[in-house]
Amino acid sequence: MQAEPEGFDRVLSSMCTEPHPVAREAAERFLATNPGDPGTYPTVAELEDRAITMLGDIAGLDDPSGYVASGGTEANIQAVRIARERARTDGIESPTVVVPESGHFSFRKAADLLDVELILAPTDETHRVELDAVRERVDDATALVVGVAGSTEYGRVDPLGELGEIAHEAGALLHVDAAWGGFVLPFTDHEWTFAQAPVDTMTIDPHKMGQAAIPAGGLLVRDEALLDELAVDTPYLETTSQATLTGTRSGAGVASAVAAMDELWPGGYAAQYDRSQANADWLATRLADLGYDVVDPTLPLVAADVPTPTFEALRDEGWRISRTGTGELRVVCMPHVSRSMLESFVEDLAAVSGRTPTAVPTDD
Amino acid sequence: MQAEPEGFDRVLSSMCTEPHPVAREAAERFLATNPGDPGTYPTVAELEDRAITMLGDIAGLDDPSGYVASGGTEANIQAVRIARERARTDGIESPTVVVPESGHFSFRKAADLLDVELILAPTDETHRVELDAVRERVDDATALVVGVAGSTEYGRVDPLGELGEIAHEAGALLHVDAAWGGFVLPFTDHEWTFAQAPVDTMTIDPHKMGQAAIPAGGLLVRDEALLDELAVDTPYLETTSQATLTGTRSGAGVASAVAAMDELWPGGYAAQYDRSQANADWLATRLADLGYDVVDPTLPLVAADVPTPTFEALRDEGWRISRTGTGELRVVCMPHVSRSMLESFVEDLAAVSGRTPTAVPTDD
Repeated sequence: MQAEPEGFDRVLSSMCTEPHPVAREAAERFLATNPGDPGTYPTVAELEDRAITMLGDIAGLDDPSGYVASGGTEANIQAVRIARERARTDGIESPTVVVPESGHFSFRKAADLLDVELILAPTDETHRVELDAVRERVDDATALVVGVAGSTEYGRVDPLGELGEIAHEAGALLHVDAAWGGFVLPFTDHEWTFAQAPVDTMTIDPHKMGQAAIPAGGLLVRDEALLDELAVDTPYLETTSQATLTGTRSGAGVASAVAAMDELWPGGYAAQYDRSQANADWLATRLADLGYDVVDPTLPLVAADVPTPTFEALRDEGWRISRTGTGELRVVCMPHVSRSMLESFVEDLAAVSGRTPTAVPTDD
Repeated sequence: MQAEPEGFDRVLSSMCTEPHPVAREAAERFLATNPGDPGTYPTVAELEDRAITMLGDIAGLDDPSGYVASGGTEANIQAVRIARERARTDGIESPTVVVPESGHFSFRKAADLLDVELILAPTDETHRVELDAVRERVDDATALVVGVAGSTEYGRVDPLGELGEIAHEAGALLHVDAAWGGFVLPFTDHEWTFAQAPVDTMTIDPHKMGQAAIPAGGLLVRDEALLDELAVDTPYLETTSQATLTGTRSGAGVASAVAAMDELWPGGYAAQYDRSQANADWLATRLADLGYDVVDPTLPLVAADVPTPTFEALRDEGWRISRTGTGELRVVCMPHVSRSMLESFVEDLAAVSGRTPTAVPTDD
């Protein structure tokens, strides 16, 4: 096999990144292990316990329960599944889930899979969910309210305290999707942790801003009993039940998550947040100088209304970029995204658009 | 992080194994790629196409569709999901799935997740599903009939041709679980492929007997339209839809699957099958000589009625062994399981049980 992977030198679209060197080393060392079979692979199973403890530290949860999932999609699916099972136990036959329209598309996948009704709540001009709209959509059939802590499109954090109140008043759970945000939010003023808001379950992925190797997602639950909603019996394995969605799982992901968190929490992640946020602020300023409407980057993620022909021309230059649902250019300032990459990107943008700083736009 | 993974020198329980050196190398090279985002990581997305083509070669399917899943559990879940969606399109409100009692527990997980009724069909004295029992359980509500090609407990292959006829007469699909068996069955007389039986969907995992790195499961479908049942829209990604259960996926798994199949299909896998089967036959003979009832290993997997105290004593000696649902010792002759390992295991078994070849049993 001669194929070589692309480098990251033009990747501005991904919410994953190059694993930290210690994370890569651990992934390679634990490549042939399976935490899904703890009787056979006990060392990596112990590492998973450590990963959950550390994720709890980051997310403000003493005595956390959870597991290292294949990624944020699995964790979001499992959160919806927990809520569905719990609602059924409470006699709700057709449970619903209220999700901000800024929620990741994995919630649509979860609803399809799990046969629950997904009810979208609109966001306001700040791209956070409208609380009144959530209130209108929550009723006795609501099993789960979702809040986003670092949205995929604009890096926004929903008002989680209020969402939790609304959910709990209706007897529903609050799930927070911090898949991408969880490793930058600790260094901001946002309120997002289990300690700061009445969060029941959370998605927080080491393989995104946590700089672990793929696959290393995270599901945390405040109350261990919530995990029991997921358990199925396991013959053949020398353990009695399994709460994960998948069976065989990646020990590489687990080991690399622990290695990355051991190395980087909290100082390394704080420094990376500072670099990424400074890069996002710099890029937002440059894009505004070129005359684009820019969505203020409250986390290290920049969106701007770059027209499709310009977007396509940048892709033709080799830039790996993506768009929001409404078509804006979206740049995620991951650890591999350096200032010099962004300088080169802005140069190319100026060239393909014919724009110069403070000049009148010519490409739209 | 100082933890080191256990070696494989006493692992007799796992259906995974050490990845082949070329598979390990490819996994390490593609560690930082994500086939779930083909717009950003096009090379690994192309490798996934190649993986599916090669899996189709192995499983007798020209022009195959499918994807590299996180493992057999995901592939089995998705097969049930395809059948559920298709049944609903046909107006079946409460679809059922008929699964041999020898089916993997992932089908129970799938049924729980997807809210379909799982109907178990008993197996006969040869540990294959009873066709009459399947016929009795299939009706207008049946969405899927499952056949196992290499069962987890005894390595048995169900009569897939007949199961397909029963399924199709009822308007249902046939799914074959060849997660473990798919890389040894090509070298046997069993009829299990898409070419030999009316199979609609199949699970076939490179990370088991295929010697790829975890996570590399496989889902194959005969008709590409079946995959459309799984598709959800994907904003943010420069592709339009996604049929996988997870979002971010492991490029390491995909690349290592291609590397292993390029290296080993068919000659290397054939040689490995010969070694593994010879080891299983040797172990079965030794266990019978010690006076145990042994289930004839038709594939490289040996089960025998070793009593619990002996089983526990072997675990105390460091052997990683597991049991069938009815409590028999179960040894999977994976590529890492050598003759000398088995000789050492049989010596320990004789020592802890107090049995000698042809002597009267003393441990039960």
